[in-house]
Amino acid sequence: MKDALQVVKIGGNIIDDEAKLNSFLKDFAQLTGPKILVHGGGKIATEVSKGLGIEARLVDGRRITDAETLRVVTMVYGGLVNKNIVAKLQANNCNALGLTGADADIIPATKRPVKDIDYGFVGDITEGTIPAKTLKLLLENNLTPVIAPLTHDGQGNLLNTNADTIASALAVALSGHFETRLTYCFEKKGVLTDINDDNSVIHQITNNQYTSLKNDGTIAQGMIPKLDNAFRAIAAGVTSVFICHADDVLPILEKKATAGTELVNS
Amino acid sequence: MKDALQVVKIGGNIIDDEAKLNSFLKDFAQLTGPKILVHGGGKIATEVSKGLGIEARLVDGRRITDAETLRVVTMVYGGLVNKNIVAKLQANNCNALGLTGADADIIPATKRPVKDIDYGFVGDITEGTIPAKTLKLLLENNLTPVIAPLTHDGQGNLLNTNADTIASALAVALSGHFETRLTYCFEKKGVLTDINDDNSVIHQITNNQYTSLKNDGTIAQGMIPKLDNAFRAIAAGVTSVFICHADDVLPILEKKATAGTELVNS
Repeated sequence: MKDALQVVKIGGNIIDDEAKLNSFLKDFAQLTGPKILVHGGGKIATEVSKGLGIEARLVDGRRITDAETLRVVTMVYGGLVNKNIVAKLQANNCNALGLTGADADIIPATKRPVKDIDYGFVGDITEGTIPAKTLKLLLENNLTPVIAPLTHDGQGNLLNTNADTIASALAVALSGHFETRLTYCFEKKGVLTDINDDNSVIHQITNNQYTSLKNDGTIAQGMIPKLDNAFRAIAAGVTSVFICHADDVLPILEKKATAGTELVNS
Repeated sequence: MKDALQVVKIGGNIIDDEAKLNSFLKDFAQLTGPKILVHGGGKIATEVSKGLGIEARLVDGRRITDAETLRVVTMVYGGLVNKNIVAKLQANNCNALGLTGADADIIPATKRPVKDIDYGFVGDITEGTIPAKTLKLLLENNLTPVIAPLTHDGQGNLLNTNADTIASALAVALSGHFETRLTYCFEKKGVLTDINDDNSVIHQITNNQYTSLKNDGTIAQGMIPKLDNAFRAIAAGVTSVFICHADDVLPILEKKATAGTELVNS
């Protein structure tokens, strides 16, 4: 039997709130066995951009990563956010090591091709191209990789890359070596049947159930990309995916409580 | 016989000039065998600080790392500079991996005690406290660590730390496992007998010769801390230290030319 590996992703709602971040990292540090933390960006990049007089460029409501913005996200995601998480995990006796996708070439990517919109320095990951070797080496030596949402094109350019996608791509790549569980922390307690009722959490969904809930409109628009992504990860070898509140990560993953939503193979 | 390890340090004069940096990294990538790159900060941190309206605080001419400045150096040194170097080395087929001293706890440090001056979040490294284990693991797996001038106190705080000191501390720590050569790249061709004559390079200095040259005033003020540091590294186990221009790193370290200044045990 393969060892279990936890891949946990946190986003801006935790990163932007120091008390929440500290509490989450204390829990994460206590998870036993091999684990990886993937973090998103948060509002700090927007604040730093404003401070430096760099205007956010949006096309059709989507943010464009021009050269100046790439510098800011490299500073904020790869430096400030990543290294502060690492230092805090070290203080919690977790031997963390912060990486972008360029480091040890752990996440090769390609710059998104220009079609209707030029997204700028944004990276797309090609399925099956992530080498597991270095991450496996680090995990086997009790190191905990902390991954910033940046990849690279192998030609010297860093690329801004969606953290949800990175988390699922890493979980898939490592599923050949570990029994991999992927957890997305977000601001709700799980996937809800009623978006206005925080207690309407669906505790388990199969792919078939998901299709029905999507078709009848029960699952809200914003959740669809996250769930599609999660079910693709399961189809590609990930054992299960949890979607839950950051407060529930430790009890769920240590199997001491039923909370959040678990997505499983149908 | 132990394998040779090259520890090379670059500073602001290379980091701040993209053409020089690209040329240096191309050479560095070609060095065969295990190697580590340590980089300093450069002017970018000052520019970003200015942009964000953070004033440099100087006490008796020495820069103070307050909390705001620490955020900037974490962004710039740990993020922008470090990750761009990594991406560029990857493009040169060098499997680089960027780290601060907090990552994998490779450089534990202590916040400098407040005496006459409170330097703020500045880290001092205690001799003999650097664990070689993780760096050795990375080097043995053909990874090239790229180290930013940041350490941590083990209590969740990053600390701004002199890159020359980091380079020598790492070289010393690894000298038990490798035959370690430490190279400082700077803007001159080596240690000069006449500061106004770039061709007056002293090609080799022993510790005894250094004492004489220091006493008779031949060696200029600015070079003394660098050389003191270098001779301490040699006394602590480093095989030799080169001080040279970045352009000469490859020929010197591949032993294809005599250039720069080599410091050796007397």
